[in-house]
Amino acid sequence: MFTKEEYLTRMNQTKQKMMEYGVEVLLISNPSNMYYLTGYNAWSFYVHQILVVMIDEEQPIWIGREMDAHSAKVTTWLDENHIIPYPDEFVQSTIRHPMDFVANILTEIGQGNRKIGLEMDAFYFTGMCYERITQGLPNAEFRNFSTLVNWVRLIKSDTEIECMKKAAKILENAMHAAFYTADVGMRENDVAAAIYQAQISGTKEFGGDYTSIVPMIPTSENTASPHLTWTDRRYKHGDYLTIEIAGCYRRYHTPMARTMAIGKAPDKVKDLAKVVVEGIETTMDTIKPGMTAEEVESVWSKTIAKRGYFKESRLGYSIGLSFPPDWGEHTVSFRKGDRTIMQPNMTFHLMPGIWLDNYGVEITESIRITENGCETFANVPRELYIKEPSQISHMTSPKEQTGS
Amino acid sequence: MFTKEEYLTRMNQTKQKMMEYGVEVLLISNPSNMYYLTGYNAWSFYVHQILVVMIDEEQPIWIGREMDAHSAKVTTWLDENHIIPYPDEFVQSTIRHPMDFVANILTEIGQGNRKIGLEMDAFYFTGMCYERITQGLPNAEFRNFSTLVNWVRLIKSDTEIECMKKAAKILENAMHAAFYTADVGMRENDVAAAIYQAQISGTKEFGGDYTSIVPMIPTSENTASPHLTWTDRRYKHGDYLTIEIAGCYRRYHTPMARTMAIGKAPDKVKDLAKVVVEGIETTMDTIKPGMTAEEVESVWSKTIAKRGYFKESRLGYSIGLSFPPDWGEHTVSFRKGDRTIMQPNMTFHLMPGIWLDNYGVEITESIRITENGCETFANVPRELYIKEPSQISHMTSPKEQTGS
Repeated sequence: MFTKEEYLTRMNQTKQKMMEYGVEVLLISNPSNMYYLTGYNAWSFYVHQILVVMIDEEQPIWIGREMDAHSAKVTTWLDENHIIPYPDEFVQSTIRHPMDFVANILTEIGQGNRKIGLEMDAFYFTGMCYERITQGLPNAEFRNFSTLVNWVRLIKSDTEIECMKKAAKILENAMHAAFYTADVGMRENDVAAAIYQAQISGTKEFGGDYTSIVPMIPTSENTASPHLTWTDRRYKHGDYLTIEIAGCYRRYHTPMARTMAIGKAPDKVKDLAKVVVEGIETTMDTIKPGMTAEEVESVWSKTIAKRGYFKESRLGYSIGLSFPPDWGEHTVSFRKGDRTIMQPNMTFHLMPGIWLDNYGVEITESIRITENGCETFANVPRELYIKEPSQISHMTSPKEQTGS
Repeated sequence: MFTKEEYLTRMNQTKQKMMEYGVEVLLISNPSNMYYLTGYNAWSFYVHQILVVMIDEEQPIWIGREMDAHSAKVTTWLDENHIIPYPDEFVQSTIRHPMDFVANILTEIGQGNRKIGLEMDAFYFTGMCYERITQGLPNAEFRNFSTLVNWVRLIKSDTEIECMKKAAKILENAMHAAFYTADVGMRENDVAAAIYQAQISGTKEFGGDYTSIVPMIPTSENTASPHLTWTDRRYKHGDYLTIEIAGCYRRYHTPMARTMAIGKAPDKVKDLAKVVVEGIETTMDTIKPGMTAEEVESVWSKTIAKRGYFKESRLGYSIGLSFPPDWGEHTVSFRKGDRTIMQPNMTFHLMPGIWLDNYGVEITESIRITENGCETFANVPRELYIKEPSQISHMTSPKEQTGS
């Protein structure tokens, strides 16, 4: 989907930063960064794999499990001789570790005594990886560059924005599927199933991809816990729920949260929803290129402070492509101290969730910074959705309805 | 679902092993181990969190992000004063790291100078976690115990087996949904959507949980790459696919793979399928308590060797509860050198996939070791499934069929 030209641009931007920071070799274990630079796309990150970016080589080298080398051939732009498989005996072994293999390869190709950057806090780069790679390359000089490529990913290309727009179409379908399915007598897992069905079947024109976080749809008092997933509890009249999901197209995400109530919403939830909506809309009206991330956050915090509310957690974060377990890019956060300057084609999940002792409200948007402001990716009414319970009994599960 | 008694038994077995190995404090970051010991269940492992098991304390201490502390209160058996939240400013910060916070807590409660076990190669315990925890506790003595709790999990309780049996019911539905949906004109993602729908909606009696690996359903020449997920390519007559999925009930998994062809299968696929089926059935007929894992593997490898085949990768691995990105337990593997002795209520994914240069076949089973042999969890015909293409056009997507 991405042209080789786009990959080479990404590589060059990465090498530019490596040069600035004095890194000669960058070892990448973050699957999102691996995908960004090469297109590698398989569910193989549960075993160790590394992409080696060398400052003086056009192509990086992929090192991974033997049975996954074929995926590298199929999904990346790399030449076959830049795909190096390690034998299966390195997998989850108490004797051998894949980083021993990586260290040997780096030594063999003359990279063992260079300045090496590690993604020290990236997913899947374990303490053991760190120990074994440093022991295996005693003549190298190591430094932490956990998010070097993440920062390259910050401003999206037009092709990336197109992917996110497609993700947003899928998201709209998935959110409506949740609204449609959540009803008296239905179970939380039925709503999750409807969300998945919409997320993956996508549209007639294009299919959906799996999201890096599963649907999080806590009910009523559990809305105080934003990261609960679901159970098979049945909804009753007066239940309310937060729905935090994303659409995903070719690993590009647009997340969104909405809050809905079945039949009626408690006044405290209605009140909090008004505060959240006022807060996000005031913030979105204000965001424009040139502002800093912390200035964006302060618009929000001042707006809700007028209503007597305070949110301790960050207001949002950069988004784009990602692999589980997170759809955030781990770069910009809307919070105090983050002085990143807003620029066109930065993309964020603006995440005004407020969680109190026994309830919470989330009404959020994925946004793109434009030339003079911002725009949302998806179009779903920005309000607390109060649903009239259906007259029809929903006691049969969607599974039975499709007859499969 | 699990009684406090069962949790205490698990804790005691863990402490027993800690005593054997001379570990006084075990820091757990593996979400599966955290769930096993406490019931903690939320999608929050994308930020750092730690469970502290002390050899001389009944309850462990959960340390995690502030907004997730409520999930710990809701899902675990721990007293509130054993749930310690860290402020949001520690999340993805370049200045503060959650392990600094953990180190301070350990020091405060007098655990800073003890023999501390780390899950050095566990998911989500990064190189940076290792660096910061060891720097923060200069008087502690650290050793690697990546899989100490994983080994405690090896033999399942009756309640755990019940969970896996429910997971298997869900798996059967999901596999049949895949068989039903894969057809000429349908897209790979439509099959994935149908699988998800079945996995999550579960049965009338109980709902399904998300699986730790997404559906992997590569088509035709891509079956050589077992960990590819899906695209929106449309199936044509003569395509074949491997379907590796699981059912999941309350985090307990039963995986399975099947291979199917649409309309007709190439002879090479038919031949390989026969070899795989003969191999797995011979192996299953032979497994019994007392055999070692490598003996199990050798039955398989001798059987397929007679047909001229060789599988480099392991034949399977221990399974049970898990969180993404893997449903394996990272303990026993069916391969040379693994001398673990089979015992009743050990559970495995017996994984005879063979991947050749441009095609592959997988026909696998989740099994339980019984008193005198083994039994499968799910019941799906163990053969290459050749489907007659439907007479009905499947050009409409399942999404449209449900009307959402």
